Amino acid sequence: MKTVYSPRHRLHADNQELNAGVITPAFELPARVDFILQRIAAVGLGAVIEAAPVDAVAAAAKVHDAGYLRFMADFWKLWLAEGRTGPTMPYVWPARGQRDIRPQHVNGLMGYYSFDGGGSFVAGTWEAVQSAVWSAVGAAELIHGGETAAYALCRPPGHHAGSSTMGGYCFINNAAVAAQWFLDHGARRVTILDVDYHHGNGTQEIFYRRRDVQVVNLHADTAVAYPFFSGRADETGEGEGEGFTLNLPMPFGTAWETWGAALDVACRAIEAFGPDALVVSLGLDTFEGDPISKFKLTREDYPKIGARIARLGRPTLFVQEGGYAVEDIGHNAVGVLSGFEGA
Amino acid sequence: MKTVYSPRHRLHADNQELNAGVITPAFELPARVDFILQRIAAVGLGAVIEAAPVDAVAAAAKVHDAGYLRFMADFWKLWLAEGRTGPTMPYVWPARGQRDIRPQHVNGLMGYYSFDGGGSFVAGTWEAVQSAVWSAVGAAELIHGGETAAYALCRPPGHHAGSSTMGGYCFINNAAVAAQWFLDHGARRVTILDVDYHHGNGTQEIFYRRRDVQVVNLHADTAVAYPFFSGRADETGEGEGEGFTLNLPMPFGTAWETWGAALDVACRAIEAFGPDALVVSLGLDTFEGDPISKFKLTREDYPKIGARIARLGRPTLFVQEGGYAVEDIGHNAVGVLSGFEGA
Repeated sequence: MKTVYSPRHRLHADNQELNAGVITPAFELPARVDFILQRIAAVGLGAVIEAAPVDAVAAAAKVHDAGYLRFMADFWKLWLAEGRTGPTMPYVWPARGQRDIRPQHVNGLMGYYSFDGGGSFVAGTWEAVQSAVWSAVGAAELIHGGETAAYALCRPPGHHAGSSTMGGYCFINNAAVAAQWFLDHGARRVTILDVDYHHGNGTQEIFYRRRDVQVVNLHADTAVAYPFFSGRADETGEGEGEGFTLNLPMPFGTAWETWGAALDVACRAIEAFGPDALVVSLGLDTFEGDPISKFKLTREDYPKIGARIARLGRPTLFVQEGGYAVEDIGHNAVGVLSGFEGA
Repeated sequence: MKTVYSPRHRLHADNQELNAGVITPAFELPARVDFILQRIAAVGLGAVIEAAPVDAVAAAAKVHDAGYLRFMADFWKLWLAEGRTGPTMPYVWPARGQRDIRPQHVNGLMGYYSFDGGGSFVAGTWEAVQSAVWSAVGAAELIHGGETAAYALCRPPGHHAGSSTMGGYCFINNAAVAAQWFLDHGARRVTILDVDYHHGNGTQEIFYRRRDVQVVNLHADTAVAYPFFSGRADETGEGEGEGFTLNLPMPFGTAWETWGAALDVACRAIEAFGPDALVVSLGLDTFEGDPISKFKLTREDYPKIGARIARLGRPTLFVQEGGYAVEDIGHNAVGVLSGFEGA
């Protein structure tokens, strides 16, 4: 399986996040990609291709709000204009009872376009974000060109990014961009299967009223786990999209027996939908050693995930999402991909 | 004029706020009350009475959501149960496209019930918050007992607190509680006049659909100033409340000429409404020396505010809100009150 990635992800570094009342360096850091690349080389998974530049804004505009994309393009400039040089952090937002109205000042804008304190910008963030889209589109092109599968090693990740909201380390929803790209290049229906520990709230929101993209999510129960405000089992889509969203939330401590059974439920729903292409939002934070998550998957479980997905027999694009146990993320990501290939 | 206050405000100390990408000690601190009390004594404004305990939750429940009040009562305990001891800070919230659903875990709850990173709890916050309600109710009782005016020296302040959202240093909306108290004790209509630099978004939200409480706000234009997501001139109330909200936003740099003219517009609207009681949300952050604001009122302007309000000839309860130039806040707060008395 070929991997597409861009070294420009490194421009997004030394970003920060807010947790438990303190600001800390973000768990989502450049070394994540290094460990995955090392493991790809070690097992000989296949060629690693540097993503060619594409018009990331044009590709993203099909699933994101234009004002949101403009804001991200301008954000760092607006921030510097206020005399600031450190990472950004939203601090006030349009809560219930307030008005969803776009302010003019960067202090308001960053809250208007955020859902948490984890979508922190540094000087190079916007360039890195666009390069992740290059990777997603580049890998989708490989599949369109005839490959059975491809791996978009995107960083920053994307599945938390909504149509007009950043957060959870995500800015542009790479998986959503790729799904839309497939539709725009001949696919009639696409499934996004999200196996990250955290609910892919952005992906769900983007496609919630559509029937051409099925969104299937396996994740920690959002009654008690981040991102909290979507991902419940009773969210099944709306309007035309009713029935095309499937959430399979699971309790803290979930290990393979339960998780694998949920994956099987997910795969049967995907078979019933019959997509022309499958996009897998590949998070590895289900791992027992992940520093911010509470599932108990082991290194041996990841190849089984890949094998089960392979049995769906669809053109499959893996898009990198979360996973923060950096020394293990390479093993586990490549475990899924090798499991897919070996199946 | 008598002042009612509680020394228990000191239990809310060493709280923090999030601004420009960093967490800092909050500008809203106990010394604010000390400077005001010193100035009250220096000018001989009148007796300072310690607030008697009342059932703050029962009083607040008339204008706040019951689940919100329960959360605040439990917040510190939930926080400690997670092994944390420092000040709280929300970090993820239900943005547009997500679901306004109450999570079970404190990490989600604090974002569910917040609109910014300025409603930070410490161990004593909930006790201090309740004591501020004691002050508001105690001062309202003085007026009900025949006083022309009284001053509730509340801390923490309240005007940003919505029916179910904390933020902007505010938790329970003391002015809203007092207005409702007047209605429950014979008043047919009450006006809240908010002269704080920042829009009183919480007060507006609480009464937005009601016609028995007129809400009049003078503040910095929220297109560019905190709290950003309400306070525009086109917000005039809804449903039954249509026409009973008046916003007078003003640009950065506003000095007395403009501000005083806006106060006159406000006072004429209040005269037209004809309230049985007037609650003044008294913020002093319109002062030229305020560290977080951009208006240009001078020490000489504050007595003029009091004098103009006095000409309305209504029973008047002053409720302390913002103002962060601590060395001047005493002069300016007492300037308003003395101006009222001298008129």
